[in-house]
Amino acid sequence: PGAASRTPASVILSPPEIFAAMARAGGEKCKFPFYKLAYLSILAGAYIGFGFAIALLVAGGMNQAPSNPDKSQVNVGVYRLVVGFFSFPFSLALVLINGGEVWTSMPMYSMCALYEGKCSVLDVLRVNAISWCGNFAGAGMQCGLFIASGIFEGEDSRHVRFLVEEKVSAGFGRIFVKSILGMWLIGLAVWQGNAAQDLTGKAIGVLMPTSFFGALGLENSTANMFVYPMGTFYGANITAGQFVADGIVAVSLGNIVATMLMIATSYATIYGRIPMLVEDAAQK
Amino acid sequence: PGAASRTPASVILSPPEIFAAMARAGGEKCKFPFYKLAYLSILAGAYIGFGFAIALLVAGGMNQAPSNPDKSQVNVGVYRLVVGFFSFPFSLALVLINGGEVWTSMPMYSMCALYEGKCSVLDVLRVNAISWCGNFAGAGMQCGLFIASGIFEGEDSRHVRFLVEEKVSAGFGRIFVKSILGMWLIGLAVWQGNAAQDLTGKAIGVLMPTSFFGALGLENSTANMFVYPMGTFYGANITAGQFVADGIVAVSLGNIVATMLMIATSYATIYGRIPMLVEDAAQK
Amino acid sequence: PGAASRTPASVILSPPEIFAAMARAGGEKCKFPFYKLAYLSILAGAYIGFGFAIALLVAGGMNQAPSNPDKSQVNVGVYRLVVGFFSFPFSLALVLINGGEVWTSMPMYSMCALYEGKCSVLDVLRVNAISWCGNFAGAGMQCGLFIASGIFEGEDSRHVRFLVEEKVSAGFGRIFVKSILGMWLIGLAVWQGNAAQDLTGKAIGVLMPTSFFGALGLENSTANMFVYPMGTFYGANITAGQFVADGIVAVSLGNIVATMLMIATSYATIYGRIPMLVEDAAQK
Amino acid sequence: PGAASRTPASVILSPPEIFAAMARAGGEKCKFPFYKLAYLSILAGAYIGFGFAIALLVAGGMNQAPSNPDKSQVNVGVYRLVVGFFSFPFSLALVLINGGEVWTSMPMYSMCALYEGKCSVLDVLRVNAISWCGNFAGAGMQCGLFIASGIFEGEDSRHVRFLVEEKVSAGFGRIFVKSILGMWLIGLAVWQGNAAQDLTGKAIGVLMPTSFFGALGLENSTANMFVYPMGTFYGANITAGQFVADGIVAVSLGNIVATMLMIATSYATIYGRIPMLVEDAAQK
Amino acid sequence: PGAASRTPASVILSPPEIFAAMARAGGEKCKFPFYKLAYLSILAGAYIGFGFAIALLVAGGMNQAPSNPDKSQVNVGVYRLVVGFFSFPFSLALVLINGGEVWTSMPMYSMCALYEGKCSVLDVLRVNAISWCGNFAGAGMQCGLFIASGIFEGEDSRHVRFLVEEKVSAGFGRIFVKSILGMWLIGLAVWQGNAAQDLTGKAIGVLMPTSFFGALGLENSTANMFVYPMGTFYGANITAGQFVADGIVAVSLGNIVATMLMIATSYATIYGRIPMLVEDAAQK
Repeated sequence: PGAASRTPASVILSPPEIFAAMARAGGEKCKFPFYKLAYLSILAGAYIGFGFAIALLVAGGMNQAPSNPDKSQVNVGVYRLVVGFFSFPFSLALVLINGGEVWTSMPMYSMCALYEGKCSVLDVLRVNAISWCGNFAGAGMQCGLFIASGIFEGEDSRHVRFLVEEKVSAGFGRIFVKSILGMWLIGLAVWQGNAAQDLTGKAIGVLMPTSFFGALGLENSTANMFVYPMGTFYGANITAGQFVADGIVAVSLGNIVATMLMIATSYATIYGRIPMLVEDAAQK
Repeated sequence: PGAASRTPASVILSPPEIFAAMARAGGEKCKFPFYKLAYLSILAGAYIGFGFAIALLVAGGMNQAPSNPDKSQVNVGVYRLVVGFFSFPFSLALVLINGGEVWTSMPMYSMCALYEGKCSVLDVLRVNAISWCGNFAGAGMQCGLFIASGIFEGEDSRHVRFLVEEKVSAGFGRIFVKSILGMWLIGLAVWQGNAAQDLTGKAIGVLMPTSFFGALGLENSTANMFVYPMGTFYGANITAGQFVADGIVAVSLGNIVATMLMIATSYATIYGRIPMLVEDAAQK
Repeated sequence: PGAASRTPASVILSPPEIFAAMARAGGEKCKFPFYKLAYLSILAGAYIGFGFAIALLVAGGMNQAPSNPDKSQVNVGVYRLVVGFFSFPFSLALVLINGGEVWTSMPMYSMCALYEGKCSVLDVLRVNAISWCGNFAGAGMQCGLFIASGIFEGEDSRHVRFLVEEKVSAGFGRIFVKSILGMWLIGLAVWQGNAAQDLTGKAIGVLMPTSFFGALGLENSTANMFVYPMGTFYGANITAGQFVADGIVAVSLGNIVATMLMIATSYATIYGRIPMLVEDAAQK
Repeated sequence: PGAASRTPASVILSPPEIFAAMARAGGEKCKFPFYKLAYLSILAGAYIGFGFAIALLVAGGMNQAPSNPDKSQVNVGVYRLVVGFFSFPFSLALVLINGGEVWTSMPMYSMCALYEGKCSVLDVLRVNAISWCGNFAGAGMQCGLFIASGIFEGEDSRHVRFLVEEKVSAGFGRIFVKSILGMWLIGLAVWQGNAAQDLTGKAIGVLMPTSFFGALGLENSTANMFVYPMGTFYGANITAGQFVADGIVAVSLGNIVATMLMIATSYATIYGRIPMLVEDAAQK
Repeated sequence: PGAASRTPASVILSPPEIFAAMARAGGEKCKFPFYKLAYLSILAGAYIGFGFAIALLVAGGMNQAPSNPDKSQVNVGVYRLVVGFFSFPFSLALVLINGGEVWTSMPMYSMCALYEGKCSVLDVLRVNAISWCGNFAGAGMQCGLFIASGIFEGEDSRHVRFLVEEKVSAGFGRIFVKSILGMWLIGLAVWQGNAAQDLTGKAIGVLMPTSFFGALGLENSTANMFVYPMGTFYGANITAGQFVADGIVAVSLGNIVATMLMIATSYATIYGRIPMLVEDAAQK
């Protein structure tokens, strides 16, 4: 029995199939009762919190980390490599495999469903509002548990402060651009994760763009809901305005642009109904 | 024969399917005869012991380990990275793939079964009691074998003492919180491991959250059943009260909260019968 | 149920099947409407830009990078290893899995289709022109986003300048040869990626030759469309003539030779209709 | 076609299925003609020799190896990590995938077959005797080839001597215990390798416990059949009595205990006929 | 739908199935027209050249490489590790997955076919002669491209000279033995690669023994057809006699012994017709 004589099987969706699956999943999410969507969003917030805790404790705990006062040991390339691979990828995989709703991908799911006529504009607003709030609740709860555990007390709080201060130092405009780039990658990670039909494929699919996101030091709305409270608790030198404007608003706007425009609209144009809708509108 | 023309196959369970599989497996475990459950629990205790032995000998044997008296070589980030990847993940995979019952996941399995009406409260108590005791017996036996092997004699006993003393230094409250965080991750590892329907998928599914558990230095009940006796033998400076209260009681309570509440109750609410049961209760 | 008693399944195409799939896919691409092919090409340009940004920021940010003025820390072998594994492979996988048309592989797809009689010479020219322009637009847009993000400001701009100046220093002839070698590898990466029928297989198939491409410091047309504008912005000391001749023309010519000749013509001779066409021509 | 609407396929055996497959495979091995079993055992001895050669040349050739006279460079944790991952796992996978009979797992296979009534006690003795001798012949032949190749001449012979002298220094009793621990892990590696129904799964299944075996510096009978002759040739300071008693007898006894008792008897009690046989015996 | 209730699928061939597949593939190769076999062999020569170029540029470019004149930085264990993993494995996978005929495995394929009565002795000689010559042509062409690219000019030529001079310093006899060991591993890599029925499995199957081959610094005929011309061009101090006798003849003889005897004859005895043929011959 040689390979050539058999019809190969497939355990991956093709690009048009991924789009169709995303639109269908988006439509289903819009039908979720409130308690279900809220609970899934709280869980996702907590799972993402685990990933940021790892970024802070492992990569941030390396002598190579940029927060190390002994600059002769700093090696940012190595630090970025570890942040990329060993923090958010595993965290996002938890959400995708076990079940959870991270707001980062919700604009993408819901817009695909909207373009394909599987939900209303009101549905889009509703699921995004619930998952945004649920993520904040879950990430905040996780932040509380980590503070209560005392893990970050002492030397390991230095990198927490450093990271949050470094984040806000970029300013609103650049944070907005970094959010677009960051959530474009995270959105593609979820996209790819839905393509794979086996656990390893989902893990690798999520890992690849998410490791870029981490290594480039980009911005993610749900992740910020964990690290900004952490930074504030451990004494980062940021103002309440920076917390809200730079940590939450700029990043949320970037998320909407990245996942609604860069991903959902792109693939709905390529594989979905947008060209047909445009033609219909033009004929009227 | 291109991918697009074939229906893709799947070798992973979806989130609702995982919950159903967990509840069914929990129900089956409740039907196990005593000797079978006890034997599987002893094996699991021994398998977990292997993982902790590796954590102590490999990561603990690195010049980068925090127990190294030459502080100029210590690099806790690198140490945490190695502890995370090369110790418990492979150990937990042994349990899942070959067969074994680790108590860490038993509250989760049995509560899912209870919520879905597949077992009684007495069953839940029975299987948890047996697996808890079996794990302790297996981990203790493994501890005896490692002591008899002499592997940890000399320089390598230093890290054993260091680790146990560092663990108890956190105190009951923080150990309880670290147990919740730790066993939430381990519980999700087992959850994911049951989602995958191939060996690599199970290994990766288990690896991802378990590596976080190790790298964050969190607490696990079965692992403590191995390392506390080891530490005591090699002269760690802890009291009998600390052994029992911090090493066993706090961690066991944390396990119950994490796997019964954080995982079983969450997913039984989202994918299981809890909303229906609540509605029924409300209608009475 | 043991392995021996079952007919094994296959999730990979055999070499002749890959060629047939490539020719069929090439034929389909020739039928794409303009907006679809252009959009897919813009996306691919942007995805490849992510990969180069990582090469510049992670490998280039290591103390081991050849651009480090402190030569005692430089270790080019280690730098090449990181460039190879953690930059373009993940980027090219994004294109293949999610959907995108990178010009690097378009001569190969379209020539396979042409040899197998699935499109005309005009189709070949059309799809190559559209994807070349689309890639430039996408890579340029991505370059703009990265510049706007400010990520490369300060110390991290040094490696950007270094890399572009080092690239042009090879001169037209050598750049042409490096493009043949480089795009032979990238072409084989896409070839292999189409062989696999699961996400992990596609990722590994793409990773293997693409990591060679990166580690050997070879040339890729789409990648240059990102890094030459970046280098110019951050002050690399190159002329407009070098930009066009070395960065674009030499590399585009090399791409055509590598993917049309080395790959498409080779496998069309081995597995396709070329021998039959030659025989037919000889009989006339 | 989304994942939820399809019945997932499985490419792994469940724990009870592994036991059944092991017993069936054990029964088949007992039916092998002499020449076949002997040949497979010689091959396995040679394959395991490759693994030990790597352990000696790669991990032993690192400046971090404990045999390095310059103690300031020694880092046993790092050395153990490399020994664990890059030596025996790949070697044992060669045996499992291509075909070979390593004595380490023969007591396990044959006892499972005996418990399930698929062979006689005489069969058990016969297959174990043949595979033990065949392994010794194959490992010895491989040892001869490596000596003839001259690879280990000069500096690289130092670690060969170091390792064999370190091994015997533990003494008979501890070597016996280290053999139990070591072959429990190797036995589980074979067990897991039989669970997986794809090459990657078999490789990962074997890798996980085998890397623990190597990193913990445990004992394996077939491996010793390669390294003790090597050590003797390159001048390790051990006596003939140590060679036989510590290198062969203690380790062979440990193997029998580990794989017959720890694994075969355990899983035959849990998933096999032992409880039924005990009940039958009790009723008489 | 739990795993236990389904019949597991298999995506790997069992040892007897691999042998049958090898014999069948060998028979098919003997039926290839000249142009097809020659073309596939030229491609394989070029693909293997890529692997050696990486070995020279990445591992050879590390400060840890033995060719580094600053001996305080040399770490041969680390150098061997990188040579093993990141050079030939990916290169051989290119051959296996995309299509190519490397002479290393041709004696093995053709002898399996001969033993199973699927080709004649003349066929064996023919396919081996064509693939040997084709490999030399392809490797030579690749060598020319790399020289033309200028990649190895300057500092990176040092390791090229070092490696070739180190290779010949072993002398004919030891090179012959190192060829047997080396091509036994490469042959097993191809054997395993044919067992797997998915891309990742083929990649891992090839990686495992091939990484041993590279790390042990063994000999391979096709690889030498690339590196000896390279070494000669960059001024390695070897004679024409050493080039022919040590670089080509000794290694080709070793290849024949390893793959015809160690592998093809072994598995034809165990799983094929050799015992039957011997019995038939004895009965006459």
